[in-house]
Amino acid sequence: MNLPSKVLEQAVNELSQFPGIGKKTALRMVIHLMKQPEDIVASMAKAILNLKTNLLFCRVCHNVSENELCDICNSVNRNKKIICVVKDFQDCISIESTNQFNGTYHILNGLISPVDGIGPGEINIASLLNRVKTDEIEEVIMALSATIEGDTTAFYISKKLKDYEVKISQISRGIAIGGELEFADEITLGRSLVNRVKFN
Amino acid sequence: MNLPSKVLEQAVNELSQFPGIGKKTALRMVIHLMKQPEDIVASMAKAILNLKTNLLFCRVCHNVSENELCDICNSVNRNKKIICVVKDFQDCISIESTNQFNGTYHILNGLISPVDGIGPGEINIASLLNRVKTDEIEEVIMALSATIEGDTTAFYISKKLKDYEVKISQISRGIAIGGELEFADEITLGRSLVNRVKFN
Repeated sequence: MNLPSKVLEQAVNELSQFPGIGKKTALRMVIHLMKQPEDIVASMAKAILNLKTNLLFCRVCHNVSENELCDICNSVNRNKKIICVVKDFQDCISIESTNQFNGTYHILNGLISPVDGIGPGEINIASLLNRVKTDEIEEVIMALSATIEGDTTAFYISKKLKDYEVKISQISRGIAIGGELEFADEITLGRSLVNRVKFN
Repeated sequence: MNLPSKVLEQAVNELSQFPGIGKKTALRMVIHLMKQPEDIVASMAKAILNLKTNLLFCRVCHNVSENELCDICNSVNRNKKIICVVKDFQDCISIESTNQFNGTYHILNGLISPVDGIGPGEINIASLLNRVKTDEIEEVIMALSATIEGDTTAFYISKKLKDYEVKISQISRGIAIGGELEFADEITLGRSLVNRVKFN
């Protein structure tokens, strides 16, 4: 693509570094920006800069936060005795959107994956064990994906937690609510049959 | 979407203002940015700001430029006697990519469209007529889209140019090179039959 200006070219190159954004989409974004008034463009540039300068990670649960303690760990309305273990803060956002959980989180920042060279030491497991030990946690919920990595990580953590008096649970797996059996994959359907629960 | 931080929320809101980018994609972009080192994020913010502060429009052809005259209007290698009339600078980029044109451009910055309230006065037609009058232009090529708006604009300009001794031409229309007849739309195919040219 022959762009008529170096400034334009630079902006397109920068924006096309985003995952899933190619040169053409980046050019569309740049054209959109060029049409905006100066203060809107300035506020966008500032919001991007703020990401690096004003964002911290909560020292308890490792969630993104603006303070040392995130809003959830700092809230008096949350049950500090329950920890929901998630892979990353996006999963935390997904669970928060359900409005069904009132405990705290622990963000692992990854899953154990020997293939990718990620061992238990690379993710936030030590700090989780420390929380369980010192904060008299009652329940640890594994909210990890139903993959080999998720299962391995959950298994590893559950083994490590055996020494403590803590209830370990796992989010349920099965066919999606509102989902037609016809479209459920065979493995999910098979497992949901084997792990059937009492009808109430 | 319940985001764990105001800074995050602001960045997501800013990025989701781009056309075709929703909250989820914006969040993915923000996560990508958070993982980048500070200098890369800073250079992206700077490239965005530069768009407003360092970009001008060429005073001759209205193309985006960093100087009063754009690189094309300023080049000694371009034929200044031929003007290719295009709708916007994206179309100019497309034509430049073909490497088949060595003249100059005139960016209309829109097309006549009474439905949208855009008349001949709203787009850069007066400056085009002025160029033709003062610069002894030999040929004006209409490179406008084959739509009602494109045709209306080309017709209006060609009528205005009748007073000057200048050749007026139009980019050819028909089936795409390498295109199967089977997949060409009926109107294009019909027109390309009616407007058939001598086989050489």
